[in-house]
Amino acid sequence: MSKASVGIIMGSTSDLPVMKEAAEVLEELGVTCEVTVVSAHRTPERMYEYAQGAKAKGLKVIIAGAGGAAHLPGMVASLTTLPVIGVPVKSRNSIDGWDSVLSILQMPGGVPVATVALDGAKNAGILAAQMIGAFDETVGDNLAKFKENLKTKVIDGVKTLDEKGWKNF
Amino acid sequence: MSKASVGIIMGSTSDLPVMKEAAEVLEELGVTCEVTVVSAHRTPERMYEYAQGAKAKGLKVIIAGAGGAAHLPGMVASLTTLPVIGVPVKSRNSIDGWDSVLSILQMPGGVPVATVALDGAKNAGILAAQMIGAFDETVGDNLAKFKENLKTKVIDGVKTLDEKGWKNF
Amino acid sequence: MSKASVGIIMGSTSDLPVMKEAAEVLEELGVTCEVTVVSAHRTPERMYEYAQGAKAKGLKVIIAGAGGAAHLPGMVASLTTLPVIGVPVKSRNSIDGWDSVLSILQMPGGVPVATVALDGAKNAGILAAQMIGAFDETVGDNLAKFKENLKTKVIDGVKTLDEKGWKNF
Amino acid sequence: MSKASVGIIMGSTSDLPVMKEAAEVLEELGVTCEVTVVSAHRTPERMYEYAQGAKAKGLKVIIAGAGGAAHLPGMVASLTTLPVIGVPVKSRNSIDGWDSVLSILQMPGGVPVATVALDGAKNAGILAAQMIGAFDETVGDNLAKFKENLKTKVIDGVKTLDEKGWKNF
Amino acid sequence: MSKASVGIIMGSTSDLPVMKEAAEVLEELGVTCEVTVVSAHRTPERMYEYAQGAKAKGLKVIIAGAGGAAHLPGMVASLTTLPVIGVPVKSRNSIDGWDSVLSILQMPGGVPVATVALDGAKNAGILAAQMIGAFDETVGDNLAKFKENLKTKVIDGVKTLDEKGWKNF
Amino acid sequence: MSKASVGIIMGSTSDLPVMKEAAEVLEELGVTCEVTVVSAHRTPERMYEYAQGAKAKGLKVIIAGAGGAAHLPGMVASLTTLPVIGVPVKSRNSIDGWDSVLSILQMPGGVPVATVALDGAKNAGILAAQMIGAFDETVGDNLAKFKENLKTKVIDGVKTLDEKGWKNF
Amino acid sequence: MSKASVGIIMGSTSDLPVMKEAAEVLEELGVTCEVTVVSAHRTPERMYEYAQGAKAKGLKVIIAGAGGAAHLPGMVASLTTLPVIGVPVKSRNSIDGWDSVLSILQMPGGVPVATVALDGAKNAGILAAQMIGAFDETVGDNLAKFKENLKTKVIDGVKTLDEKGWKNF
Amino acid sequence: MSKASVGIIMGSTSDLPVMKEAAEVLEELGVTCEVTVVSAHRTPERMYEYAQGAKAKGLKVIIAGAGGAAHLPGMVASLTTLPVIGVPVKSRNSIDGWDSVLSILQMPGGVPVATVALDGAKNAGILAAQMIGAFDETVGDNLAKFKENLKTKVIDGVKTLDEKGWKNF
Repeated sequence: MSKASVGIIMGSTSDLPVMKEAAEVLEELGVTCEVTVVSAHRTPERMYEYAQGAKAKGLKVIIAGAGGAAHLPGMVASLTTLPVIGVPVKSRNSIDGWDSVLSILQMPGGVPVATVALDGAKNAGILAAQMIGAFDETVGDNLAKFKENLKTKVIDGVKTLDEKGWKNF
Repeated sequence: MSKASVGIIMGSTSDLPVMKEAAEVLEELGVTCEVTVVSAHRTPERMYEYAQGAKAKGLKVIIAGAGGAAHLPGMVASLTTLPVIGVPVKSRNSIDGWDSVLSILQMPGGVPVATVALDGAKNAGILAAQMIGAFDETVGDNLAKFKENLKTKVIDGVKTLDEKGWKNF
Repeated sequence: MSKASVGIIMGSTSDLPVMKEAAEVLEELGVTCEVTVVSAHRTPERMYEYAQGAKAKGLKVIIAGAGGAAHLPGMVASLTTLPVIGVPVKSRNSIDGWDSVLSILQMPGGVPVATVALDGAKNAGILAAQMIGAFDETVGDNLAKFKENLKTKVIDGVKTLDEKGWKNF
Repeated sequence: MSKASVGIIMGSTSDLPVMKEAAEVLEELGVTCEVTVVSAHRTPERMYEYAQGAKAKGLKVIIAGAGGAAHLPGMVASLTTLPVIGVPVKSRNSIDGWDSVLSILQMPGGVPVATVALDGAKNAGILAAQMIGAFDETVGDNLAKFKENLKTKVIDGVKTLDEKGWKNF
Repeated sequence: MSKASVGIIMGSTSDLPVMKEAAEVLEELGVTCEVTVVSAHRTPERMYEYAQGAKAKGLKVIIAGAGGAAHLPGMVASLTTLPVIGVPVKSRNSIDGWDSVLSILQMPGGVPVATVALDGAKNAGILAAQMIGAFDETVGDNLAKFKENLKTKVIDGVKTLDEKGWKNF
Repeated sequence: MSKASVGIIMGSTSDLPVMKEAAEVLEELGVTCEVTVVSAHRTPERMYEYAQGAKAKGLKVIIAGAGGAAHLPGMVASLTTLPVIGVPVKSRNSIDGWDSVLSILQMPGGVPVATVALDGAKNAGILAAQMIGAFDETVGDNLAKFKENLKTKVIDGVKTLDEKGWKNF
Repeated sequence: MSKASVGIIMGSTSDLPVMKEAAEVLEELGVTCEVTVVSAHRTPERMYEYAQGAKAKGLKVIIAGAGGAAHLPGMVASLTTLPVIGVPVKSRNSIDGWDSVLSILQMPGGVPVATVALDGAKNAGILAAQMIGAFDETVGDNLAKFKENLKTKVIDGVKTLDEKGWKNF
Repeated sequence: MSKASVGIIMGSTSDLPVMKEAAEVLEELGVTCEVTVVSAHRTPERMYEYAQGAKAKGLKVIIAGAGGAAHLPGMVASLTTLPVIGVPVKSRNSIDGWDSVLSILQMPGGVPVATVALDGAKNAGILAAQMIGAFDETVGDNLAKFKENLKTKVIDGVKTLDEKGWKNF
């Protein structure tokens, strides 16, 4: 297997149903990734090692998903100079997702996290591919095709709606 | 100077105007404390060392203040078995304090942070003293006097109001 | 039975499914506790007696759970010098839990409540054990083992994920 | 002085600038009132005595103002069968007033508090007068005149605006 | 049937499942009431007539329930000098109830609405009874018994919990 | 078929269950409309063409529904001088609808969007008819009848409630 | 003076500094308007008369501004078939504007209000002109020029920025 | 001057005081950038051209700042395959910044925007540099030095605090 360009991490395997969408879209876009579990609060040493070794092993971007008081994306960002994408996960006892969103988004000056929408792991994958595609022509072309596909699906919807009419849809 | 029982930490000296109220009330209650700066995002290794060495050097409680996406209290709690009190600080670009409150309060199962009110450093100090006062009679007595004083000030207010009348207050 | 160190109270037996997690984790950590019902709004005299007698009968910490306009934790804190941990319970007509959280967290200067996450009774139990473990070596050791277990479970997740691969998880 | 029909209480004399508007409008409406300081968290016994003695000494309504985690209105309501009007006060470290509003409004079934707008002490006074005016003809008539005056002021505004024109207002 | 003292109104019969709790508790407390449908937005003239005739036909209090942009309680309050209790109803497309709560609670100076908790119709009934019970001894006594019952139910819960133990509850 | 006066657009056919209510009520009110899919983010060129051609083809109003970070209504408004009505749709990963509401409502000075309630497509249709009915007598008369019907349904509810009584409803 | 096409109303002359922006932009766009004070809560009869007479006297649109529990726009909409534009005004004791926004926006099915941004009176004026401009060619042309001007101002900003450079701006 | 790698755009020169921090930190990190004004709502065609031509002229990242119903970042993202960083700006009539944050963050699946904290333009600049630094060794080294400097400033604060003592700070 080729070396991974994107590292996808999350606090628990229970976040995998949300986070695997990032891996799926990266695969679709021709970007290699690795997926593992790293918990800021339960395995802080593991988080240190992962973040500090990420650049040396060839990663270009890290995607980190977490819920509630979500510290994983921000802490990883404090330990690497790679861009870190944060995915706020709406966990079981979350207060409607606000806790995850704000504890990832509102980072202090000096340590940014690129935050995407609540449960937006798919967009995190696309964003990672865009960062790579700005420098890698193949990935850039894949993104252009992906964008074209988004449009095609809308146009297909337009046609179906026109044929059926809105009353029978 | 006697050994500190309470460690007060914050991400930046700019938090000191809020956080020093914790030190002041601890002094008033006869509890020794130390005050220093530890940043989760800018000095993560220092945070590790501080948190992991805290119990061995005799601390009984840690008070951690932070604003915005406030990770210091929760990360310190992940690295020690001592109780950690979190003070949400309303920082400059905070969204009305909600970010600080939620990123300290909504910790996942297994790693609690004892959260107090927004900018509530004074209450953090009292709470730390209460934890110690449950086992230390002198501090317990000081807390009882402190509580009595709170009452006396209210009663004084009642008397002044009675004398002046509400129209002239 | 040995004397209880932690008192767990709640406004109604309907809060027990949430609040019993505090008792369970305390038992796991070797801390004795008592569990009873005390309502701030329906049995105010009982609340007074409970809070004012708590220290004399040997309690070191009180855990109080309540929902909606949650006054039990704060009122108990006004009547004792013991540390009080408040658990915001997401009750039936709660506005997404915000009412419980804010009416426990935002205590005025002088009367702190150590607030944990929404429905975070388990963390309340761990926090109570941490307060005791700072002074009691056995409980301190139990907490260290508990923390080690948290880590082990994450590492087990890592291994399973590695074996199965994220696509088959 | 005639016996008071309405008791106005607040947690601290610092709430008086807001709360005195209740006393002022009650005086304007011909309803006698008494004003004093009672703190739920700092003088809980005083609160018990005040609330439990209120009906016997002739009060018909209690107005209670409080900020932050505002427990005074709800606790007084738990200790009397008189109607209690709660005024959420926007205190210094309040989170935009949400804490005061929710901790007064969201009372559990069985113990209502009649909540008015944030800092709405004037409306609390009018509401108390309305409760009395439903049974007392003089106060009822005063309320009718008060309502007429509200209308007159608007009509005066209409006239001035018509005369000056909106460009010159 | 004796003349009604409390008028209970709502915008639609679909609010009846929530609002009938007000009628039930008033009956339990010995207070007569009438229940009908009045819509601020769909029958504005009917609302005018209802509100302006309420005092003359002997009502002492009006309870008005509404959801979303809830204008019924405030508009009725603008048309009568009787006290009006507003019940924010969590309607189908409500934004978590915030719209109902704020559009009833935040009335301008001069026109108060006594707001109760979201879907708090039962408390609205009790509050109406309290306003009447301040002047009517029988209702006052019923309220005292009602309060005693609230306490008894809690004490019964305490006993059951003691007998069964929290593990078996 | 007569030329459409109102254009109803949405980002995806998945919004049709909400948005078709606009078409239904317009038909009921005698206003012709067209319904199609236009996505701001996936078919930006199509959006440009639709918005810029709308006036020339005879549309008088555009209704645009969108969820999450909802840019369709505002962007269409930037590209036409026709009035644009925005319908905030509560999409799957919306944060309780707040994102849709705020990203449609809070348009900058110069480019208004007439925003209706969350999922309020029916009201969007009525509002569009009102804009047309201000100039077209037939539509104006239809709206008057529609308003009368709203009243009749309430009065019917009143009668049913009176006959059955609230206890049996 | 020519007959007014747009009626601008507000609850008090204190809202005029915000609301006059609507009149100013209408004048700029060649649309005649009238401005007056109508209070839903203090002059409900006047509101009825104004709303019910609006269409007959030639108005095509009504703009209503209000703050706090803002009932004026919705109540006027219940009393006319003309389109009503609501302007949420951030009043003195408003809870950050949320009360005004939600009590205008979240209207029930059948009675829409075209809501604009907080304090967005200028946009209300433009929106009213757009409704008229869809039928009146002169106003439509004025709107096209207005839109062109918005663009020109941005382009001017671009040029100034290019000349000065961002460091010296 | 060397060709720009990062394009910084904003809706108005009034956003420049916030947005210039992005340009400043990029310069400090050795990354070339261009700064201009592009308004989604007032110059939609210019936005199209800018976004669609960005990749061809050599940009690797676009930073877009906007306030209120902030559509610029998301619309630009819909028109390019480059990564787009969105800066929510707290504009004059913003509802505490929530509108800007949510209308940038909550993008639908397929079109991500890398969102940073409210007014977080400095972090947007650092994030852009990180994306470039993952591929460009010089920028990567500059980021490592930048991170080291953040740490040094904290350590300096620690020393000053130790020397002065917290009471004299």
